Amino acid sequence: MASAAAHIRLAAQGRPVYSFGSRRQHPAIAAMIERAAWIGGVDGASNTCAPEGIPLAGTMPHAFVMCYPRQEEAWCAFDRCAGPEVPRIMLADTFYDEKVEAVRAAASGATAVRLDTPRSRRGNMRAIVEEVRWELDVHGYPDVKIFLSGGLSREDVAAYRDIADAFGVGGAIANAPVIDFAMDIVEMEGRPYAKRGKRSGAKQVYEMPDGRRVTLPLQAPAPEGGTALLARCIERGAVVARPNMDDARERVLSRLSGLAREG
Amino acid sequence: MASAAAHIRLAAQGRPVYSFGSRRQHPAIAAMIERAAWIGGVDGASNTCAPEGIPLAGTMPHAFVMCYPRQEEAWCAFDRCAGPEVPRIMLADTFYDEKVEAVRAAASGATAVRLDTPRSRRGNMRAIVEEVRWELDVHGYPDVKIFLSGGLSREDVAAYRDIADAFGVGGAIANAPVIDFAMDIVEMEGRPYAKRGKRSGAKQVYEMPDGRRVTLPLQAPAPEGGTALLARCIERGAVVARPNMDDARERVLSRLSGLAREG
Amino acid sequence: MASAAAHIRLAAQGRPVYSFGSRRQHPAIAAMIERAAWIGGVDGASNTCAPEGIPLAGTMPHAFVMCYPRQEEAWCAFDRCAGPEVPRIMLADTFYDEKVEAVRAAASGATAVRLDTPRSRRGNMRAIVEEVRWELDVHGYPDVKIFLSGGLSREDVAAYRDIADAFGVGGAIANAPVIDFAMDIVEMEGRPYAKRGKRSGAKQVYEMPDGRRVTLPLQAPAPEGGTALLARCIERGAVVARPNMDDARERVLSRLSGLAREG
Amino acid sequence: MASAAAHIRLAAQGRPVYSFGSRRQHPAIAAMIERAAWIGGVDGASNTCAPEGIPLAGTMPHAFVMCYPRQEEAWCAFDRCAGPEVPRIMLADTFYDEKVEAVRAAASGATAVRLDTPRSRRGNMRAIVEEVRWELDVHGYPDVKIFLSGGLSREDVAAYRDIADAFGVGGAIANAPVIDFAMDIVEMEGRPYAKRGKRSGAKQVYEMPDGRRVTLPLQAPAPEGGTALLARCIERGAVVARPNMDDARERVLSRLSGLAREG
Amino acid sequence: MASAAAHIRLAAQGRPVYSFGSRRQHPAIAAMIERAAWIGGVDGASNTCAPEGIPLAGTMPHAFVMCYPRQEEAWCAFDRCAGPEVPRIMLADTFYDEKVEAVRAAASGATAVRLDTPRSRRGNMRAIVEEVRWELDVHGYPDVKIFLSGGLSREDVAAYRDIADAFGVGGAIANAPVIDFAMDIVEMEGRPYAKRGKRSGAKQVYEMPDGRRVTLPLQAPAPEGGTALLARCIERGAVVARPNMDDARERVLSRLSGLAREG
Amino acid sequence: MASAAAHIRLAAQGRPVYSFGSRRQHPAIAAMIERAAWIGGVDGASNTCAPEGIPLAGTMPHAFVMCYPRQEEAWCAFDRCAGPEVPRIMLADTFYDEKVEAVRAAASGATAVRLDTPRSRRGNMRAIVEEVRWELDVHGYPDVKIFLSGGLSREDVAAYRDIADAFGVGGAIANAPVIDFAMDIVEMEGRPYAKRGKRSGAKQVYEMPDGRRVTLPLQAPAPEGGTALLARCIERGAVVARPNMDDARERVLSRLSGLAREG
Repeated sequence: MASAAAHIRLAAQGRPVYSFGSRRQHPAIAAMIERAAWIGGVDGASNTCAPEGIPLAGTMPHAFVMCYPRQEEAWCAFDRCAGPEVPRIMLADTFYDEKVEAVRAAASGATAVRLDTPRSRRGNMRAIVEEVRWELDVHGYPDVKIFLSGGLSREDVAAYRDIADAFGVGGAIANAPVIDFAMDIVEMEGRPYAKRGKRSGAKQVYEMPDGRRVTLPLQAPAPEGGTALLARCIERGAVVARPNMDDARERVLSRLSGLAREG
Repeated sequence: MASAAAHIRLAAQGRPVYSFGSRRQHPAIAAMIERAAWIGGVDGASNTCAPEGIPLAGTMPHAFVMCYPRQEEAWCAFDRCAGPEVPRIMLADTFYDEKVEAVRAAASGATAVRLDTPRSRRGNMRAIVEEVRWELDVHGYPDVKIFLSGGLSREDVAAYRDIADAFGVGGAIANAPVIDFAMDIVEMEGRPYAKRGKRSGAKQVYEMPDGRRVTLPLQAPAPEGGTALLARCIERGAVVARPNMDDARERVLSRLSGLAREG
Repeated sequence: MASAAAHIRLAAQGRPVYSFGSRRQHPAIAAMIERAAWIGGVDGASNTCAPEGIPLAGTMPHAFVMCYPRQEEAWCAFDRCAGPEVPRIMLADTFYDEKVEAVRAAASGATAVRLDTPRSRRGNMRAIVEEVRWELDVHGYPDVKIFLSGGLSREDVAAYRDIADAFGVGGAIANAPVIDFAMDIVEMEGRPYAKRGKRSGAKQVYEMPDGRRVTLPLQAPAPEGGTALLARCIERGAVVARPNMDDARERVLSRLSGLAREG
Repeated sequence: MASAAAHIRLAAQGRPVYSFGSRRQHPAIAAMIERAAWIGGVDGASNTCAPEGIPLAGTMPHAFVMCYPRQEEAWCAFDRCAGPEVPRIMLADTFYDEKVEAVRAAASGATAVRLDTPRSRRGNMRAIVEEVRWELDVHGYPDVKIFLSGGLSREDVAAYRDIADAFGVGGAIANAPVIDFAMDIVEMEGRPYAKRGKRSGAKQVYEMPDGRRVTLPLQAPAPEGGTALLARCIERGAVVARPNMDDARERVLSRLSGLAREG
Repeated sequence: MASAAAHIRLAAQGRPVYSFGSRRQHPAIAAMIERAAWIGGVDGASNTCAPEGIPLAGTMPHAFVMCYPRQEEAWCAFDRCAGPEVPRIMLADTFYDEKVEAVRAAASGATAVRLDTPRSRRGNMRAIVEEVRWELDVHGYPDVKIFLSGGLSREDVAAYRDIADAFGVGGAIANAPVIDFAMDIVEMEGRPYAKRGKRSGAKQVYEMPDGRRVTLPLQAPAPEGGTALLARCIERGAVVARPNMDDARERVLSRLSGLAREG
Repeated sequence: MASAAAHIRLAAQGRPVYSFGSRRQHPAIAAMIERAAWIGGVDGASNTCAPEGIPLAGTMPHAFVMCYPRQEEAWCAFDRCAGPEVPRIMLADTFYDEKVEAVRAAASGATAVRLDTPRSRRGNMRAIVEEVRWELDVHGYPDVKIFLSGGLSREDVAAYRDIADAFGVGGAIANAPVIDFAMDIVEMEGRPYAKRGKRSGAKQVYEMPDGRRVTLPLQAPAPEGGTALLARCIERGAVVARPNMDDARERVLSRLSGLAREG
């Protein structure tokens, strides 16, 4: 999930991305999901059970708008009650067309409109977003932002990053495919020893200055300029090191900024 | 165009189909287009320059709805002014979502709602039509029909014929691809004679009882049970026969009803 | 996951299938995974934290074989120490080729051999299984079974069910893709009411005698012969019904046996 | 059709292209077709009803050759009767193989041979043209040109422009697919106003120095360096400007020569 | 090659097929090729070095026609000099179009015309053959046969068998892909013994009454109704049996006639 | 076959390649096959009937290893009996996994191990070769080479040339597809004259300094800088020149080294 989040952050090229998808998985791992998304670089998470230190972010749901007789009343109620630090992101696609609701929401004081268009209405999402942008501009709301959500994939984020201002991403992070890993004996009392299909002997992975990674036997001398990547966390059953969530995020972000520079 | 119309009529399996597309071509051939569509079996045409004898059919355009401050007023104005023989087909997708407008149009007295959803909103048209049907039913309008239009192809007509009640078809008839035909000398003073690539000699085409068609030299005896299909319309420069539009339509319809029986 | 397990059970057509994949997911949901696999119809699970009532099933890992100087010694140790109710399924692909190890394992008393061939050696898995079967037969062990595992998909189970005797399935169950569901307001104080893209009103789903499912408004009369499928589990925040794991499994199995009869 | 003609002219890279296809459409729009082809940049048209000012161009049909007992007699009759300004383009594929007829036509005084090979004989048209070129050269007629016709597409023109000297193009121009356009209300008494799916407000399109086009509200200031492309032709029902065919052609040709320079 | 020939014979469904392709391979194996083609069921071979007993069959080459100033003289010379048992198959595509030459050859006494159309002229071979058939009929030669050759594949033979009367097949037989076989030790002094990837032990293959083939250890009892297919030809270095070419052909033909009956 | 061998040599980029495939074809042309492979640039051939001058090269077959009770005994016997000039290439995949046998063969004195993995075990051949290389290194045998064989295609050679040290190639050379050539009359007593589909007149092919080839009439002047490629070998039935195998190979190798430089 952290890798998926990092790919999406890279695709967004600076536009904020929020994790909206922990509700798609079992509640027992919701905090773990938000932690992974945060390590991968999202700007915030919508689930209030996220580990402390992760900014919470969310916007009104359709259910909220539906509790009022007209959209305007819902937006105004939100505006009245939310603290001043909460951005006025108004959900603008509950009953009418996005084009109509977005202009009305802007007239009701929205600083951003969220489009969560149902799949059945998404014939050409780019055309819809461009049309909403045009209408906001032509009606005098050039500063109102567009916030996109609703089953967005990494490809969607890359496709819309020039016309949308922020993204809420769910399943593309929370349903990231599981990585197939294995635990294997590769050494027996210091002797290289492995089943077929596995390379024998303890190993270290070095990252070279040019970004390539080299796998070598643990006892081989480190290659010049190489940085060892594997660290021992458990020793004879005891935890001897405990990786920190924010350090991991820092490493991801610095790596991503390198990739972004390379293009 | 007649062939295209016939294919679409077959696909509609009894639901009415109207020709909406003559405006897509040069005005000089508009009457010819409606004539061809009529021969191919449409139930009516929307262009008032269609040859006499073709029923005119159309519904209000978006421009009409937009001339009123609210959709309801447009629908009521139409209802007030149209003659009693004109069906109350209300266009129900101008500003809001189809679901919302359809229920409101039904409440305003529509006998049918026309959905002409813009391409950018057509993510899953079947889901939209089913949803409109559901809403009409659940709000107490099970008798209000659904009329579909907007860039419908033959495949669309076949795909929606179980949930839509009528179709307005434009480009799929009016832009039918041109059939490549040729005029060739195939006989010279009674002697078979043709350039390479063409079969020489005058010919007759016979339709056999099983529907197959057989091409034979004109002077060959007709095959048993075969009906000659080619008739001479021009002789030594003079028009000697003039096929009738309604006869042609009759032949098409009787052939289609045969095909429909076979499935 | 239950659906994935059911599909695989159906594909196995009576050969036993065991859930081997809970280790691929977060430990916090391991019991939930085994429960879902059990509901879907597996014959047992390998994770000892499975809910009570699910038969535990597993075989020796490669690590066990590697702890002995020669494969034979590992197999014999297992045979000596395992209780009489544990089947003698010997892992037969640790160091040598499956063909060689399978015959040796049979000679060491195996009642079944497990093939967990690494991906890099799986050029034509069917050919390998057929060859192992041939060798076991030709060396006098026609009763020794073949147990397959290692990244098996549903398609693999269907492809090998005629030549393998049992299957251990991991990721194809435990990594089943998440089903996209949504929670929506569809009714407001008894009035049908839903955002666009959702059908409004409370609903009931009926299964008809021919297997089709029909969705109707909750207040509509039940269709003749239809069985209501939705039951209320929570009412005004209180849990009022608690579906039972074994009942659910029973329903799945009876449905699968219907499908198997139809082919 | 003008766009199609322009694409083909670009593909021909300087080899002349003639419009041969108006006979594929309804006679009522033949003049319109030749006008559009001329605007798009063809070097002449074969239909004598083309608007004045378009050069007429054509060659003998198969029917002409067939009216004589031997090909040579047809070619010589043409040579005897055509005015000196008419190029001696002899149709060279009526009865025999192109290779044989082309050499004979050259011996009969052709300055060019036209190949209109029937589809059934076009296994590898490039090989046929190269063979005809080789034979003309080896028999001493290196100056006799090759004129290609017969269902040529833009891809064909691009594929043969290095070995053919001129092209007659029919359906690829005359059957160009219709462009889907729409007429919509976008403003109501000066107020931006449009149905969903359309951007509201009157607009102007500007061409920027780098070739990009930018669409802006009509009342927005023109972007620096941008040239306005839309001109008002009808005002309150009266025609106020009437675009000229030759001006339009000039604009197309100057644009094409820019494209050709860029490659 | 025998298999390829058999497949083609089956595709021809009773139309004669001749082996024309031994010249495509090294002369040292020409006799072997004709032998294989004969075993596979061809009706004759064109290479005079074919083993005795195979009927020789061939027609005039293009080089023969070209040795005369006009095609008619070549056909008449052939007619004058060939023995009465040689069929008058005239090659009818040397200089002019097939359509023209075929009618002329028929007028010169051909009992069949051979079409060996060059690839570059084969745009739609079926259309060409149908056109030649039509012209022969319409000019009064319904009994003149059509003999096809020239790079024919099995698919070609199947595609044209309803309109052509005989086939000359070259590379599709003579360039049949080599079958990958191997020689392996599978038994050591009576003990099953083979490298990995091979089933150990001597084997017999049985054909069952339903056509399936079953491979069993040599010492296993023959299955009921099964016919053993492997026969020992070499024993301790001495040839002990020598399969006969005509017996092999018989077996192929009887098998093919079974397949043809089944469809 | 020579072309196929040249392509493979180029793909191997300096790693030796040996011809292993003459046994896949009829014995009558085995010498011809090895001659063609040699011309194409292989470093040696395994068939002892190769023309004199071609280096013989081969390694022990599986049958040899199987004649000994254990692999080590076979390898040691080979080492004892082979002359000192024969490289100690030990076949290392007969019974066990490549990984196990390779390390044992290295311990028995191999200078190279040959991997001839059966298709059914080749799931990811690159992973297998990398694993064998890793194990040889980690067990102290970095100088033992890896020799690959077994149905290798040109693509395989290109894919493994960075991790394998030599290649034995069979069918990819010996089963190279036959090139379709034709013998045609193109001139009659000095006059250009050919059937349709063939260019008439005797020709010469020139290679230009930039590598392009130009075909011109024989009597045309040679293009500047062009080298004539066609030489007369037979004149009025008598052989007047006899191309030399080693000269041909030299030409191929110098051409290949040019291609390799260009990349």
